[in-house]
Amino acid sequence: MAAPLVALLTDYGPGTEHVGALHALLARDAAQAGRVDLAHDIPPGDVRWGATVLARLVTLLPARSVVVAVVDPGVGTARRAVVVRTGAGPLLTGPDNGLLGPAATALGGPVELVEVEPPAEAPATFHGRDLFVPVAVALLRGVAPADLGAPADPAGLRSPARIAPEVGAGRIATLVAGWDRFGNVATTAGPGDLARAGLAVGDALRVTVGEDVHWAPLARTFGDVPEGGLLVHLDSHGVVALAVNGDHAASLLGVREGAEVVLTRA
Amino acid sequence: MAAPLVALLTDYGPGTEHVGALHALLARDAAQAGRVDLAHDIPPGDVRWGATVLARLVTLLPARSVVVAVVDPGVGTARRAVVVRTGAGPLLTGPDNGLLGPAATALGGPVELVEVEPPAEAPATFHGRDLFVPVAVALLRGVAPADLGAPADPAGLRSPARIAPEVGAGRIATLVAGWDRFGNVATTAGPGDLARAGLAVGDALRVTVGEDVHWAPLARTFGDVPEGGLLVHLDSHGVVALAVNGDHAASLLGVREGAEVVLTRA
Amino acid sequence: MAAPLVALLTDYGPGTEHVGALHALLARDAAQAGRVDLAHDIPPGDVRWGATVLARLVTLLPARSVVVAVVDPGVGTARRAVVVRTGAGPLLTGPDNGLLGPAATALGGPVELVEVEPPAEAPATFHGRDLFVPVAVALLRGVAPADLGAPADPAGLRSPARIAPEVGAGRIATLVAGWDRFGNVATTAGPGDLARAGLAVGDALRVTVGEDVHWAPLARTFGDVPEGGLLVHLDSHGVVALAVNGDHAASLLGVREGAEVVLTRA
Repeated sequence: MAAPLVALLTDYGPGTEHVGALHALLARDAAQAGRVDLAHDIPPGDVRWGATVLARLVTLLPARSVVVAVVDPGVGTARRAVVVRTGAGPLLTGPDNGLLGPAATALGGPVELVEVEPPAEAPATFHGRDLFVPVAVALLRGVAPADLGAPADPAGLRSPARIAPEVGAGRIATLVAGWDRFGNVATTAGPGDLARAGLAVGDALRVTVGEDVHWAPLARTFGDVPEGGLLVHLDSHGVVALAVNGDHAASLLGVREGAEVVLTRA
Repeated sequence: MAAPLVALLTDYGPGTEHVGALHALLARDAAQAGRVDLAHDIPPGDVRWGATVLARLVTLLPARSVVVAVVDPGVGTARRAVVVRTGAGPLLTGPDNGLLGPAATALGGPVELVEVEPPAEAPATFHGRDLFVPVAVALLRGVAPADLGAPADPAGLRSPARIAPEVGAGRIATLVAGWDRFGNVATTAGPGDLARAGLAVGDALRVTVGEDVHWAPLARTFGDVPEGGLLVHLDSHGVVALAVNGDHAASLLGVREGAEVVLTRA
Repeated sequence: MAAPLVALLTDYGPGTEHVGALHALLARDAAQAGRVDLAHDIPPGDVRWGATVLARLVTLLPARSVVVAVVDPGVGTARRAVVVRTGAGPLLTGPDNGLLGPAATALGGPVELVEVEPPAEAPATFHGRDLFVPVAVALLRGVAPADLGAPADPAGLRSPARIAPEVGAGRIATLVAGWDRFGNVATTAGPGDLARAGLAVGDALRVTVGEDVHWAPLARTFGDVPEGGLLVHLDSHGVVALAVNGDHAASLLGVREGAEVVLTRA
């Protein structure tokens, strides 16, 4: 089965020669395949954030896709390199350091796992170019995952350790997961946590970020608060997030990754 | 009429997951269409600069193109979302906050305007993914703009408020519009302002930037001044600009966006 | 002969309108050609680094490619603009300021050199859009290089001045060439220098960076040293490099471009 699209996610940085090397090889060796850049601005070595972003994006891909994902601080050490076949169709290849687990789950779970090995003569530090793109080229040409390496137990595919929010009646204690270019602050909580806490749009919330206390509504969108006003909402990826209408919440709140955020009904 | 190319301009940032989401959806739902990234480094929420850049680039596109432009600080508030058909051919979709007006003008003016609505179930904060790309996919498949929403008066398409230079004999008072990675400083003045002021290549100019006074020729190109020398010229986009041969004019001059620049024949 | 792929390397910056302009023109005028971004993050005007990166990447391209490379601090001055036909197939176009020489060498050497001229009416400062992309479009359509300008001596193609390491028994004195997003520090030395110095994997080295002295093994890969440990290795581009397992060597060592690095067997 040929897959017609290859999608890339890395921490190489936008516009870098490392991204260019992957594209050049794919254009040469899989000229018929479409190419999509999912994201290249993952902070260097941040496997957890890379896994979060990858899981959000893979569900947008057609079934006949191959995903090359490389956030790989352990390149040159003992971590496995793998191909994952998922229930929904897309194939994933990358290091088995937690990066691929949430994406595989989002795609219906891993149904096949294969360990692949870099060619003996390759340098040990650029597996995107020397291992994962060649694997993707083979998959795009219709080679079966099982023909590319040794079978492994799909249940062994790694995911980042989960940091579950603490939820009580009218209260969620969660963490800052990250923020985007617009300053919107994602937490580790989701709609299920809101439901379990009994919180609903329109509730007034006490928002504790580190040592600071703020007040904000649980709102549907920016326009529900005045310009400059803080809101808590389910963002476009379905996570509980802090935002300021027309301004950069992360800067205004002075948040740091991993800082505690406590939401309490006022 | 199917359009074979889709072109994207956003303030999402190069290499971000938000840009990746648009590409993934287009690769899935409009696989036959070519995709071009026009720019993604517009400063967050800077509608005026986004509109300036978009107007420069759309004239380079083939007639059968669809442009998705999203610089949208008002997402989630009351601003309209629209499709614009232009005299020259390319279709534009994005928020009607001024972003699309100059581009439509550059393409011969808007000849049809349609208001589109986000699907009721979509999150209110990622209209690029949830509204404008689906609209573009429909247009690429040959759906007529009129079948996508409610007709509106094309004359109502918004543009940023114009900041016209003050022009006298041998004198132009203008503003810093922005600068690029090389430090070349664009003003809001153009060739028509030079003509009305009676200024021509070869003239010696007194250049006042804020409180500082400099001297520079009105030159054709960098090579017309010594290395390190300041020049005033019509840049490659046809706007009056300040540059330093071999150096970063914006840093050397310490300019700020919106600062006044006065050019006077010496 | 039509070439089916066009590859771009510039210092315009990732996601900028300048890169977008090149893509828009190519999508319009060479719609059948594939497009690859090799790199756009070359520091502005850094011809030497652009030449280094370009030479690494061009060997990954198929034979029927056209490369547009623009790092051009001398635009608007007297430098030549050229088309280069190489032994391995890919055609190169860009300024003849040293940028293209190492890439041509990596592709088997220049076998034909043609000087091209910008159209008289074009602005003098955006030759990527106004000269090199139109040249590439003609080449992609099968126009012969000789039909695009005046023939010149291929031996006259410029390269950056070479900075050769000083090599003695058990000793290499070299320079910092640059570093990447992960902090890996490239030097100007290569595998031939290691061989001439008689250094081999496993050797313990005294590493002098500017005034500071460190100790590190000549290793094969990151995993050969403990986390946080310094190593010297041949990186994935085949140059002698300094790295720290799991950390940012350039920051930890406080290196600067052009700083001296001396490796001595301990």
